[in-house]
Amino acid sequence: MKPITPGAVVIGQSGGPTAVINQTLIGVVKACLQRPETFTKVLGAVHGISGIMKGEFVDFALEDPANLEVVAQTPSSALKSVRHKATPDDCQKIFARFKELNVRAFFYIGGNDTAETTNIINEMAEKAGYDLACFHCPKTIDNDLRVTDHCPGYGSAAKFVAQAFMGDNLDNRALSGIKVNIVMGRNAGWLTAASALARVHPEDGPHLIYCPEVDFSIQAFCADVEAVYRKLGRCVIAVSEGIHGPNGAELISIGEVDSHGNKQLSGSGALGDALADILKKHLAKVMPEKKHRIRADTFGYLQRCFPGVVSEVDAREARLAGVAAVEAALAGVRSGSIAFKRTDAPYAISTFVTPLPTVAKETKPMPRELINAAGNDIVAEKLLPYLRPIVGQLPAIGQLKGTQKA
Amino acid sequence: MKPITPGAVVIGQSGGPTAVINQTLIGVVKACLQRPETFTKVLGAVHGISGIMKGEFVDFALEDPANLEVVAQTPSSALKSVRHKATPDDCQKIFARFKELNVRAFFYIGGNDTAETTNIINEMAEKAGYDLACFHCPKTIDNDLRVTDHCPGYGSAAKFVAQAFMGDNLDNRALSGIKVNIVMGRNAGWLTAASALARVHPEDGPHLIYCPEVDFSIQAFCADVEAVYRKLGRCVIAVSEGIHGPNGAELISIGEVDSHGNKQLSGSGALGDALADILKKHLAKVMPEKKHRIRADTFGYLQRCFPGVVSEVDAREARLAGVAAVEAALAGVRSGSIAFKRTDAPYAISTFVTPLPTVAKETKPMPRELINAAGNDIVAEKLLPYLRPIVGQLPAIGQLKGTQKA
Repeated sequence: MKPITPGAVVIGQSGGPTAVINQTLIGVVKACLQRPETFTKVLGAVHGISGIMKGEFVDFALEDPANLEVVAQTPSSALKSVRHKATPDDCQKIFARFKELNVRAFFYIGGNDTAETTNIINEMAEKAGYDLACFHCPKTIDNDLRVTDHCPGYGSAAKFVAQAFMGDNLDNRALSGIKVNIVMGRNAGWLTAASALARVHPEDGPHLIYCPEVDFSIQAFCADVEAVYRKLGRCVIAVSEGIHGPNGAELISIGEVDSHGNKQLSGSGALGDALADILKKHLAKVMPEKKHRIRADTFGYLQRCFPGVVSEVDAREARLAGVAAVEAALAGVRSGSIAFKRTDAPYAISTFVTPLPTVAKETKPMPRELINAAGNDIVAEKLLPYLRPIVGQLPAIGQLKGTQKA
Repeated sequence: MKPITPGAVVIGQSGGPTAVINQTLIGVVKACLQRPETFTKVLGAVHGISGIMKGEFVDFALEDPANLEVVAQTPSSALKSVRHKATPDDCQKIFARFKELNVRAFFYIGGNDTAETTNIINEMAEKAGYDLACFHCPKTIDNDLRVTDHCPGYGSAAKFVAQAFMGDNLDNRALSGIKVNIVMGRNAGWLTAASALARVHPEDGPHLIYCPEVDFSIQAFCADVEAVYRKLGRCVIAVSEGIHGPNGAELISIGEVDSHGNKQLSGSGALGDALADILKKHLAKVMPEKKHRIRADTFGYLQRCFPGVVSEVDAREARLAGVAAVEAALAGVRSGSIAFKRTDAPYAISTFVTPLPTVAKETKPMPRELINAAGNDIVAEKLLPYLRPIVGQLPAIGQLKGTQKA
């Protein structure tokens, strides 16, 4: 492995933001600023590759060092983000800019789409014989990147979802009814599954959990909810925004497709409202004697970068992912994606570099064995030991003994 | 004032829960448990007056004292709640139960509807010559009770809304577009107005705030949003769920009416989705050259009892409201609602007792002078000094200097 060619470094953030994505950014920035002989200029691309093409950069030498720590603790991409997959033409523009600025290291923070963009740029650099270190630093609240044990950004979003369900279960316990909550996660149920952490006392919700890894059936859903509701007089339900019928058949079509071919599932209450309507009609038929209180909330964008609801472990690991990428570049590794593995009980992780193509494009759904046979809950004894250390401590939830039977 | 007749005490919680409603409950409970010679039995009515009628009580003497502090810090009515206005027939049943159990003090925690129920029971007791101390302890995230400076529960919900807008503004800054957020508050804009606390840096959202105190115009709304969007390339908007046209004309009808005559505005994404649709159509017409990213989130139930997002001042004051009610009863006051007044700069409060009819039924909207002339924003210099001490410290939000123009 030959040493990295001295020159400028460009750092970018791409895709949906997370609560800890700036920990990774500042991890990269500070590690680079410490080695001015190697990283002669530390540049942040504003709006990711879009900023590289337009020449919009932040020069980190001009930023207040104390403020960088405040930025690290602030949710959502401080360099602003982009949802745009590099075309061959874009890549030519990016290269022209990299050569112009003598850029010799590129760190791109994002999900699988971002890893793919990084991989394309890396392949292009290799083909052109231009010495460029190309690293992808993982981030996604979806926790769906391949290879790594888990993804920075997930722990904090999972903490938000867990606390949201804790509160909503208590709300539903106080004023009984049926409550449907729609959770983010287009292809993977990891974030929806984290709702299970809200269960503290017997009969706590969520009572049913639906992940996109299992085909969703309206009939089974109605029967599941009815059974819980007849037993407990209430029912709290976690539903992934990505649920679908057999062969990926859409349940509700909202329209709009972004340039990665993703459907817009967030930023609308349509799915939750549709499921609430279905339940209203079902219960009016099977339990006509009673008035039913049925509500839906769509957690929406709040769950991905809520200030003040951050997993400490997640923040620390997100920072580590940035530092590890710079260390790998300094050690002579030319490209890759930073991944975590668990090394110790009760909990510790180490980082390693995995080739970009192993993380790019494809995502990792939840293994089927973490979901119960009926497809309406997770398997707590398998999932929770994985989740708890990533999410960290949750608020204590007290209950009056005297209300347990009442 | 004659001393309170020794006997049992009944405590209940009613209406929508808050994050600190159990601080008030435990404030009452602990103050009563300290005076066993006066309060011979301390009973919690499960599901408010419904539990009194059915005879469903928690005996606080049987609860673990250490657990009571955990309960105090747990959001949402630990005794469970009810949305039911006492009918004359109900009142007869409640009385029969009170006499049966020798209840001599009744503390009912809730909003204006709860104060009304407390008032009805108080009048009934007076009429029957039955010695009963009747107190209403305020709680509402809507902050719309008359007389008091502010309401327990509001500070914590305002903190949630402020933090939610902080995160959402950062999200919108990273991935530009138009974002509509629907905030709770049927008749009062206090909670929606708290979104203004999210503004830290220049150009931070929310850029527009719509409260129900001002008639909403679709035309003005479209023009307001378009102007911000043309200037900043993005726009974050806070909209109260209670907005309406002239003479209270409904913008979107969802249906369902509860026994207090309230329309169901929460638990559905309908209003946000409708406003997003209106903006999509408007911008497609006036800016057809560009693709517009328009999203809506409805904060829903999360904002009223989210564990871990609690204002410390609010928690302390909610406890105080419970203790003050018991102290008033012990001092010989027979009925009333606990209210706050500000006593000192920079911030301190004291409690006082106001007659039940001054708080029951009618609510207190935001004064018009706290809203700007155009009706699309609050008046920051008037509202924020009132809000900040109630909400307390918010997370620090960092921004890179280099992104301020980029």
